[in-house]
Amino acid sequence: MSKSPSKSVVQRFGSVIGVRGEALEKYRQMHAEPWPEINVLLKKVNIRNYSIYLTPFPGGSHYLFSYFEYTGDDFDADMKKMADDPKTKEWWSHTEPMQIPLSDRKEGEWWKTLEEVYHLD
Amino acid sequence: MSKSPSKSVVQRFGSVIGVRGEALEKYRQMHAEPWPEINVLLKKVNIRNYSIYLTPFPGGSHYLFSYFEYTGDDFDADMKKMADDPKTKEWWSHTEPMQIPLSDRKEGEWWKTLEEVYHLD
Repeated sequence: MSKSPSKSVVQRFGSVIGVRGEALEKYRQMHAEPWPEINVLLKKVNIRNYSIYLTPFPGGSHYLFSYFEYTGDDFDADMKKMADDPKTKEWWSHTEPMQIPLSDRKEGEWWKTLEEVYHLD
Repeated sequence: MSKSPSKSVVQRFGSVIGVRGEALEKYRQMHAEPWPEINVLLKKVNIRNYSIYLTPFPGGSHYLFSYFEYTGDDFDADMKKMADDPKTKEWWSHTEPMQIPLSDRKEGEWWKTLEEVYHLD
């Protein structure tokens, strides 16, 4: 029998944020060729299986939907570690002006965390 | 060395659909206690790691975002198998009236498939 990490420790996060119509191509391009340091950092703070989806919405707005899994045991500390890194700050200095956060997100959030209503392993 | 399935065969799907405000509680309740036959069917058609998220949007509409992974080798055939099952038809007879599909979805879609712009394993 091989040892494997318990599935029960994985936390899943779905989030949403707006993206400016005029920034779509730049956003796509940056995420098609993400900085290697950012991917390394994400792994370091226990993020895995991270996908971002883009979609137009009725009325002409555009939204980004993200899904990722967190495998660490201190989400807030890991997110602070990510946020404090100079490379993250530099990455976000490009991405944040392209994004339009939802007004009803929780305090301290940029991407709005969604309510999970169903999950099947 | 142990054998494990290649990661490259997993296809990820992000999708979106509207949900009627007056149906939120019923939708939540059905998905908090999904019919066991539906979960068995989803596994049988090679769907795994399936999550559905619910969120209000600016303007008062509500949307569902879904994320799942497909591990089979014939997505269309598997989805047809799912759709043809009497239990699926019964489940959908409850869920479809609660949903508002996006007008710009592709022909044949109910949930609109989103564009993946980023992925980190």
